Amino acid sequence: MMIIAGPCAIEGDNFITIAKVVKELGATHLRGGIFKPRSSPFRWSGLHEAAIPLAREAKRITGLPYVVEAMNAKQIELLYDVADYFQVGARNQQDSELLREFGRQDKPVILKRGMATTIEEFVMAADFITTEGNKNVILCERGIRTFEPYTRNTFDVSCIPAIHDLCDLQIIADPSHGTGRVELVTPVALAALAAGADGLMIEVHDDPPKAMTDGQQSLTFAEFDQLMRKVNKMQEALEWITD
Amino acid sequence: MMIIAGPCAIEGDNFITIAKVVKELGATHLRGGIFKPRSSPFRWSGLHEAAIPLAREAKRITGLPYVVEAMNAKQIELLYDVADYFQVGARNQQDSELLREFGRQDKPVILKRGMATTIEEFVMAADFITTEGNKNVILCERGIRTFEPYTRNTFDVSCIPAIHDLCDLQIIADPSHGTGRVELVTPVALAALAAGADGLMIEVHDDPPKAMTDGQQSLTFAEFDQLMRKVNKMQEALEWITD
Amino acid sequence: MMIIAGPCAIEGDNFITIAKVVKELGATHLRGGIFKPRSSPFRWSGLHEAAIPLAREAKRITGLPYVVEAMNAKQIELLYDVADYFQVGARNQQDSELLREFGRQDKPVILKRGMATTIEEFVMAADFITTEGNKNVILCERGIRTFEPYTRNTFDVSCIPAIHDLCDLQIIADPSHGTGRVELVTPVALAALAAGADGLMIEVHDDPPKAMTDGQQSLTFAEFDQLMRKVNKMQEALEWITD
Amino acid sequence: MMIIAGPCAIEGDNFITIAKVVKELGATHLRGGIFKPRSSPFRWSGLHEAAIPLAREAKRITGLPYVVEAMNAKQIELLYDVADYFQVGARNQQDSELLREFGRQDKPVILKRGMATTIEEFVMAADFITTEGNKNVILCERGIRTFEPYTRNTFDVSCIPAIHDLCDLQIIADPSHGTGRVELVTPVALAALAAGADGLMIEVHDDPPKAMTDGQQSLTFAEFDQLMRKVNKMQEALEWITD
Repeated sequence: MMIIAGPCAIEGDNFITIAKVVKELGATHLRGGIFKPRSSPFRWSGLHEAAIPLAREAKRITGLPYVVEAMNAKQIELLYDVADYFQVGARNQQDSELLREFGRQDKPVILKRGMATTIEEFVMAADFITTEGNKNVILCERGIRTFEPYTRNTFDVSCIPAIHDLCDLQIIADPSHGTGRVELVTPVALAALAAGADGLMIEVHDDPPKAMTDGQQSLTFAEFDQLMRKVNKMQEALEWITD
Repeated sequence: MMIIAGPCAIEGDNFITIAKVVKELGATHLRGGIFKPRSSPFRWSGLHEAAIPLAREAKRITGLPYVVEAMNAKQIELLYDVADYFQVGARNQQDSELLREFGRQDKPVILKRGMATTIEEFVMAADFITTEGNKNVILCERGIRTFEPYTRNTFDVSCIPAIHDLCDLQIIADPSHGTGRVELVTPVALAALAAGADGLMIEVHDDPPKAMTDGQQSLTFAEFDQLMRKVNKMQEALEWITD
Repeated sequence: MMIIAGPCAIEGDNFITIAKVVKELGATHLRGGIFKPRSSPFRWSGLHEAAIPLAREAKRITGLPYVVEAMNAKQIELLYDVADYFQVGARNQQDSELLREFGRQDKPVILKRGMATTIEEFVMAADFITTEGNKNVILCERGIRTFEPYTRNTFDVSCIPAIHDLCDLQIIADPSHGTGRVELVTPVALAALAAGADGLMIEVHDDPPKAMTDGQQSLTFAEFDQLMRKVNKMQEALEWITD
Repeated sequence: MMIIAGPCAIEGDNFITIAKVVKELGATHLRGGIFKPRSSPFRWSGLHEAAIPLAREAKRITGLPYVVEAMNAKQIELLYDVADYFQVGARNQQDSELLREFGRQDKPVILKRGMATTIEEFVMAADFITTEGNKNVILCERGIRTFEPYTRNTFDVSCIPAIHDLCDLQIIADPSHGTGRVELVTPVALAALAAGADGLMIEVHDDPPKAMTDGQQSLTFAEFDQLMRKVNKMQEALEWITD
C-alpha cells in the first residue's frame, strides 16, 4: 500500500530530515512541493527550482520514489528528471490540456479531485490522461467544498467505493487536505482505508507551527508514528474483514 | 455497540419478519417509521396509528428496543408507549421547540443532523434537549447536502471524530441515507466505525424493490448478513487498532 | 407590491417607533418576531407573549397588516388573533405536519425557502398547505446555504423566475437574510425585483448596532428610505421595461 | 456597457451570420470559442485552429472586438492575433501560473469565477494578473456550484455588489452559464444589471437545438432581440434609479 508522506512544500534542509524520518516510520513515497499553487500572489509559493537538489538528495538518501505537483508543461519539463510520480492538484484537475500533457508522459500521475468536481466528472477527467496513452493514473480524494466551515474541505468518503465501482483506477486518500485539522487526520485516514482506499497521502513536518504552509494540518513525527501504527494494523485487519 | 436496523417505514406484516431476521443477524435495536416525513403530500407517508400494533408485536417477539421518529408533540404522545427511543429526523433538527419537547421526555433521543447543519450547530441543537433535563441524546450523522449527485447525500465522515472532540455525546452513523445506494452502505458503514462511530442505523427490507420508500438504499437480508459479519470483525479489529 | 418591513424581533417600545417610520417610508406590511428560532438555547429568542400587546399597538397606530412567524400549533393559537399573515421560517419549511396545520388556517402564509431546499421541493412544500384548503400561500426566497462565507446565505435570484414558471404562487424576496450584510441589501432587493419578485421583506431597526438579533443586516431608517426610493423607481421602470 | 454575445463555440460559417445579427441587435463584443474546455475527451471541443479564419472574418464584417478563451500559454500564442480580449474560463480560474501569463499580455482579460471560488478568492485571483503588469481585468460572475439541480449553476447575484465593494475592477454577468436555461437568461440578466453589473455575456445561436454545445442555454435571435430591448430599457432606468 502506498503511503506518501512529507511536508506540504520543500522549505530547506529540513526536507532531508523529514524524508529520513517518514521513511523510517513506514512511508513508501515522498512528497514535498516545489511550485505551490496559492490563492494569492502575495503568499509564499515554494522554493521553485532551488528545491530540486533537495528533492534529489532526499531521494538518494531514502531510496523512496518522489511525488511532485506540476501545474503546466514548463513545470513538467523542469521537474521531469526528479519526479517519479507527477501530481495534478485540485486547482488544475479540470485543465483538460494539462491532463492531456500528462497523458503523454511516461510516469504515473496522481490526479486529485477538484473542489467542485462530481464523482462522474472525476472519472472522466482521468480519461484525458489515459486516452493519450498513459494508463498509469491514481485518483486521490482530498475533500470537496461544502457549507461546512469546521473542516477545510468535506472529505467525501463515499467517493472511494464509488470510484472502485465506476472504473479500474486506484484511489488514495488525502486526509490532510480533506480535513485541514491535525486531530482529524488519523480517524479520517482509517475511515478511508476501511472504505477501500488504496493508499494515503499525509502531510508531515518536523515543526508544524513553523511550516510555511499547511501547518495546521501537518502531523509531527510522533503523530505520524502513531498514525502509521494504526494504519498498519488497519491494513492487516482489513484483509481479515474482507476475507 | 448499537446496531439499529429495519425498514424505512412499517408497511405491514412483513415488519415482523424483518424484525426477527435483523435480530437474528445481530441488530440490537429495531427501526421502522410510523409517520414518515415526505417532500410532497402526494407521497405515501406511512401507516400512521395503524402501525403501532405491528411495532408492539415486533418488540414482543424480538425483545429489541424500538426507535421511532416523532415530528411534533402530538406524535410524541401517540408514540410514547411504543417508543423506546425517539428519533428527530433531519427535516426537524432545527425545530428548537420540538427539541425542547424531547428534552422533557424520559426516553433517549437520537438526533439526526440536518441537511445544511454545520457541526457546531449540530452540537448546539443537542443543547435544546439537554438543557430541558433529558441528557440522553445520541447524535446521528446521515450526510449533508452538497453538489454531488451520485450519492443521495454526502456522508461527512469527519463529523464523527469532530463531535467526539466537541462534546461528550455519542454519535452513530446512518450510511443508508448518507449514500442512498445499497452498494455503498457497507463500505461507508465500515468507514464510520473506523472514524469512531458509536453505532449504526441501517435500512433493511425483505424485498427492497417493493419497499414503499427508500428501496434503493435498503439492504436485503443477505446483504445485511454480510454487513454484520464485516461490522463485527471491524469492531474487534478496532479494539486492537486503538489499543 | 408587498413591502414587509420591521425589526427581526420585537424588542420593546421601539417597535412602535419602527412601525410608524417604515409605514411613513412606504412599507405595506409590518414584521417583528415574537418567538425567534435560534441555533442555541443560550441565545435570546424574543419577548414571547409579552410582545403581543406591542404588535397590537403597532397595528392599531399604523393600520398595517402584521406578518409573524409561528413554529408549532401552540404558537399558531397564541398568535392567531394578532397575526394577519403567518410566516413559516426556513428552519421549519420541511415540517410537513406544521405546513398542514397552516393549511387549515384562514390567514395567508408566507413560506420561506429552507437552507437546503431545492426549487422543486420548495414548490412541493407549498402543496402541503394548499391541499389542506388554504390557497393563500406566498413563497419567499431568502438564500440557500453554500460554501460562500462572505454572505450569510447565497441569494438564489434564479429561484424567482423559476417559481413563476413552475407554479401560480407569488414569490417575494428577503435580501436581509439572503445577504446578511447591510450594504448588499439594496442592490439585491433591486435585483430580486428585476427578476420578477412580487415583494420584499426587509429588516429595519432604529439602532442596528443595538439590535438583539440580525443587527448586521438591519437597515437604519435613512437606509430604508433610500432603499424605498430606489424600489419605487424600479417598480415604475419595470412596468415600462416589461411592457 | 459591454454586451458580449455569440455562440458557445465557433462551429462553422453560421458564426458569420450570428455575428452580424448580434451586432445589429446591439452586441458590443463577439464571443465564440475556439478551444472548448470539456469534462470528457470524448466530447467535441471546438474547431481549434480551423476556427481562426472564421473569427477573423466575423471581426472584419462587424467591426466588433472579439473575446476568446485561452487555456494555456500555447493557446495564448495561437490566438494572440485574433483576440481582442482573452477570457479565463471557470475551470482555469485557479491556475495561478496561467493567470500570471495573462498578466504579461497587453490585452484585456475577462476572468470568470470558478465553480467553488469564494468572492474573496476571486478578488485575489485577479491579483495574479495585475501584479504582473496587466491592469485590464474584468471579472465575470457565472454561477457557483451548489446543491440546486434546477439550474446548471447558482448565479450568485450578491457577488456583483460585493466585488464593487472589495476592489476597483469591473464585473460582468454570464446568465447563460449562470442558469443553464434559456427561459431564465433574461430575468437573471436584468437582475445582474439591477445589482450593478457592468456588462453581460450572452450565448446566442442561429439554431440552438442544433448547437454543438450549450444549446439548452443559447438564445435564438428573436430571444436575444427581446433581451436587448429589456436590457436597454433597464440601463436607462438604472441611471434614473441610482440618480
